Amino acid sequence: MSVGLGPLPTLHPVPGFRLGITSAGIKKPGRRDVVVMEAVPGTAIAGVFTTNAFCAAPVTLCKQHLTQAPRYLLVNTGNANAGSGKPGMAAALKTCAALAELTGVEPDQVLPFSTGVIGELLPADKIIAVLPQALANLAEDNWAMAAEGIMTTDTQPKGASRQIKLAGQTVTITGISKGAGMIRPNMATMLGYVATDAKVAQPVLQQLLRQAADLSFNRITIDGDTSTNDSCMLIATGQAAMAEITDPASSEYAQLAEAVNAVMLELAQAIVRDGEGATKFVTVQVNGGGNRNECLDVAYAVAHSPLIKTALFASDPNWGRILAAVGYAGVPDLDVERIDVYLDEVCITRNGGRAAEYTEEQGARVMAQAEITIRIELGRGEFSETIWTTDLSHEYVRINAEYRT
Amino acid sequence: MSVGLGPLPTLHPVPGFRLGITSAGIKKPGRRDVVVMEAVPGTAIAGVFTTNAFCAAPVTLCKQHLTQAPRYLLVNTGNANAGSGKPGMAAALKTCAALAELTGVEPDQVLPFSTGVIGELLPADKIIAVLPQALANLAEDNWAMAAEGIMTTDTQPKGASRQIKLAGQTVTITGISKGAGMIRPNMATMLGYVATDAKVAQPVLQQLLRQAADLSFNRITIDGDTSTNDSCMLIATGQAAMAEITDPASSEYAQLAEAVNAVMLELAQAIVRDGEGATKFVTVQVNGGGNRNECLDVAYAVAHSPLIKTALFASDPNWGRILAAVGYAGVPDLDVERIDVYLDEVCITRNGGRAAEYTEEQGARVMAQAEITIRIELGRGEFSETIWTTDLSHEYVRINAEYRT
Repeated sequence: MSVGLGPLPTLHPVPGFRLGITSAGIKKPGRRDVVVMEAVPGTAIAGVFTTNAFCAAPVTLCKQHLTQAPRYLLVNTGNANAGSGKPGMAAALKTCAALAELTGVEPDQVLPFSTGVIGELLPADKIIAVLPQALANLAEDNWAMAAEGIMTTDTQPKGASRQIKLAGQTVTITGISKGAGMIRPNMATMLGYVATDAKVAQPVLQQLLRQAADLSFNRITIDGDTSTNDSCMLIATGQAAMAEITDPASSEYAQLAEAVNAVMLELAQAIVRDGEGATKFVTVQVNGGGNRNECLDVAYAVAHSPLIKTALFASDPNWGRILAAVGYAGVPDLDVERIDVYLDEVCITRNGGRAAEYTEEQGARVMAQAEITIRIELGRGEFSETIWTTDLSHEYVRINAEYRT
Repeated sequence: MSVGLGPLPTLHPVPGFRLGITSAGIKKPGRRDVVVMEAVPGTAIAGVFTTNAFCAAPVTLCKQHLTQAPRYLLVNTGNANAGSGKPGMAAALKTCAALAELTGVEPDQVLPFSTGVIGELLPADKIIAVLPQALANLAEDNWAMAAEGIMTTDTQPKGASRQIKLAGQTVTITGISKGAGMIRPNMATMLGYVATDAKVAQPVLQQLLRQAADLSFNRITIDGDTSTNDSCMLIATGQAAMAEITDPASSEYAQLAEAVNAVMLELAQAIVRDGEGATKFVTVQVNGGGNRNECLDVAYAVAHSPLIKTALFASDPNWGRILAAVGYAGVPDLDVERIDVYLDEVCITRNGGRAAEYTEEQGARVMAQAEITIRIELGRGEFSETIWTTDLSHEYVRINAEYRT
């Protein structure tokens, strides 16, 4: 089940970037679970990764290899290769070395990514055995199949694509993402891949990715559990006939950033829409904060409250639970008498108490919708933050209670 | 359903403290929902209250009245009188004034407490109408009935009692508590009442309560939602024939504190055992921390993770989720290679990876138990903290999705 997530849109090929998909039977026989991506020489690649201290072996390797002019990305699902100690690191290195040998690059030019169960050793040999198949079907128009190949508990593939005019040239930005549980990215989410044929200097690309992630993947939460494997990559093949973007203050940078932001926001929201057991897509907007952090503290307190999430599941306008979460979010010297709360355009709380004109029917009408905005006005300053989340349903419990069975 | 929670133990009467119970039909007709408690003149009363900025009107009043030599406590369930603005404050004051008039004390000698739905106006007149009935059945041996009278979504009443020898005298400590959801107390939980006939100076009693709450009510969490109404009161009637305890360094203080701690820990754990939808009683112990806060950060990250809670519900030893939570708890410079994790006495993770001798059968055996200890050794220092929590079950979702229907 997902909320407002249609079939994949058209995913425009990105010149200079090919994808190959195959099945290694890591968790389920026959399921597509290995994706290889190839970037032409000269491609700039930027990455942001989980801040979880128990980050997975492939995350550690990716950070190291990112500086070595990477040419290949190797993704597997069904096994996260996290909490797997030195044997896990050796397994990840072995897959990189095998792909490097088949393609004639150095092992540290391969970026490895894993997602799935934590704490089991990666079956490197199974993956290595199918690499020739993946390489054999490398193609620029394989994005849709790759979006399927990186799924785990996702019910639908996720992709987004834009084409813009940049310095007179048509430039493409296409991306895919996966994720439905253990989602509270703090850098990026496992996994997002966005490629463009724009030509961008690597440090500038890294800055662009960081800013875009902070407005998209770093603003979603499903269960508050920051994964060990979150990784988001931005790949610029430079195949478009344009001068390299080297200045973050240039208009080309701004135009490209706007399109990348739009693609990444769509991908991040798609993860929320397909959140485990999700029946609602919820926007939590906090305005009037004294600074950015207090807006986020309030937004995450609301988004993580199991009581609010179950009320959303029940379509119950139990707004007292929202007030309680705002109250325990830890904002110093919070003056509750300045706080207004809205469900979409319905004011439920004014000056810290029930709004005089509010009726239960109005609240029930908004809560019955599949898409809901909870807006909280703190009345303390000029800062705003918006995050996206889901409800907490029976299905969430079922999925996660049965995940390994 | 509750975990390991038997019938109420014997609750010894406390000389000088009487309880009266009645029904005002606040939420459900015929249900006991009003409790009046009366303390003899000269009683010292200490209180700790929620830190939620949206604290309820009765909490605000309690804090003010606590300095006015309070004589009566007035508790209602079915309505939290929180998020109710000025009309809520007026309603609370009105009930205090009515009880004061009936008993010949000043209105500010009445401490009001409410628990139930947030955001609805307290039906003060319904409560006032039944106060004479409650006063008519005031008795020292009414603790068990009062434990029932303060329940909301609790499935069982909660009480604990001790008798100790203090300065040659038998002294009684008896308490009751309630709570099953919106439980992550941060000062105390809604609601705990502990009375003793020991004679203790009020500032010393306040210190004793604060310390006891930090080791009991402030170490439990069910859903991470800090309530608007948490209140825990410690009442010392001074009826025992003993010299007043005025020195926190005295042996009498230490003996009394030990007994109060034991009663409060039993009451706090009873709340967890009766947590909404709970099928497990889980102790999370974090050892080897560099300071107290990082131990608590790790413990709460584990206790609040929906992924760990659903795995507990499923009796699935999915220890990777525990590692992930430890990793995102925000401990600075965490060296994962020093971390060991145990389920009861089974070592599942050593030096940050799966323990060599660990087998899935060992983990499954512990996880099948109703009571489980998750022990995390950080290997950074000498600090330890222990908290208690529950799993996340289908029943939790059902209870909270249907709470207002």
